Amino acid sequence: MRELQFRLAKLPSLGPRSARRILLSLLENPEAKLWPLIHALQDAAEKIKTCASCGNLDTQDPCYICQNPKRDSSIICVVESVGDLWTFERTGLHKGLYQVIGGCLSALGGRRPQDLNLKGLLDRIARHEVKEIILALPATLEGGNTVHWLHHQVKDTDIRVTRLGQGVPAGGSVEILDDGTLASALLSRCQIENRSRNDKE
Amino acid sequence: MRELQFRLAKLPSLGPRSARRILLSLLENPEAKLWPLIHALQDAAEKIKTCASCGNLDTQDPCYICQNPKRDSSIICVVESVGDLWTFERTGLHKGLYQVIGGCLSALGGRRPQDLNLKGLLDRIARHEVKEIILALPATLEGGNTVHWLHHQVKDTDIRVTRLGQGVPAGGSVEILDDGTLASALLSRCQIENRSRNDKE
Repeated sequence: MRELQFRLAKLPSLGPRSARRILLSLLENPEAKLWPLIHALQDAAEKIKTCASCGNLDTQDPCYICQNPKRDSSIICVVESVGDLWTFERTGLHKGLYQVIGGCLSALGGRRPQDLNLKGLLDRIARHEVKEIILALPATLEGGNTVHWLHHQVKDTDIRVTRLGQGVPAGGSVEILDDGTLASALLSRCQIENRSRNDKE
Repeated sequence: MRELQFRLAKLPSLGPRSARRILLSLLENPEAKLWPLIHALQDAAEKIKTCASCGNLDTQDPCYICQNPKRDSSIICVVESVGDLWTFERTGLHKGLYQVIGGCLSALGGRRPQDLNLKGLLDRIARHEVKEIILALPATLEGGNTVHWLHHQVKDTDIRVTRLGQGVPAGGSVEILDDGTLASALLSRCQIENRSRNDKE
């Protein structure tokens, strides 16, 4: 029981207190809660695999995104983790494919280009399928290095390389912004039209 | 995957966001995290049982508290849930046994005395083992009703019935107290000695 509580407490967003509450609620209803959870976890452990082309986690390989003929395979959004991919999918705004590279280049951490999951991306570039690469990587030193390196790889092709816009987050006030974000927001400022574009003259 | 995420999100202290984070961290490390968790949960589901005498959850029946010869079996602390029992055990202050009654009497909720887990307590009373019953039940209408009913059951014996002291919680300021707690704190006030009792005259 202690081992289970310890394992639960080590999961992200949980601590000893919430682990106890979860353990208790599971143990008090083994038939309704504990066994179904065990079966669902087992099912996932047995069926989920990594998509060989983009690095997403799914029950099929290629994953449901790579298999979807309606997605635009010429636009690849490069993200660090499957969690980032899920976040993009929830917005529903990206209609292209993804590349989950599994981290960023790091001189200190010893993560080199060959340690990143870039095979699917390089394959697609080699097959001349790619028109745009959106680099949705973190705004850190490592993220910047990775952006630079990836940009360098395709600079002799006519592939467009973009990165996410930087600026004020939705709901954010100027007061709480750090200097870097404020500087980016200032540089990527846009003009407020006097009247709506759809207004008649 | 959606079913698993849904099941995780329904656990106490979790929501959709934390369920996603947990699912992801499990799926990214199936060998190191997901399978060990599944095995620990399975182990618990197969081995944990309810103690027939006190209602605690443990791998043995009677539970490790009821089996411990060092515990004072003449003092029974009556609690609503196994979670409450665990909370008491963490303080390490109660040296007697417990009775987990599984809820409180409720006229509206249709919970009658026979619906509560009182067998172990009544058995111990019948065997004249009990000297004190500590009623550690919630300070609600239902808790009050249950305290009243239990007290009525043993009023012709010489069993001492106590309930938890009420007053200011540790770290609490008067400002944040509700009227009921403040009234209880005033009624259970205690004198501050001029000098420590251990001081010499």
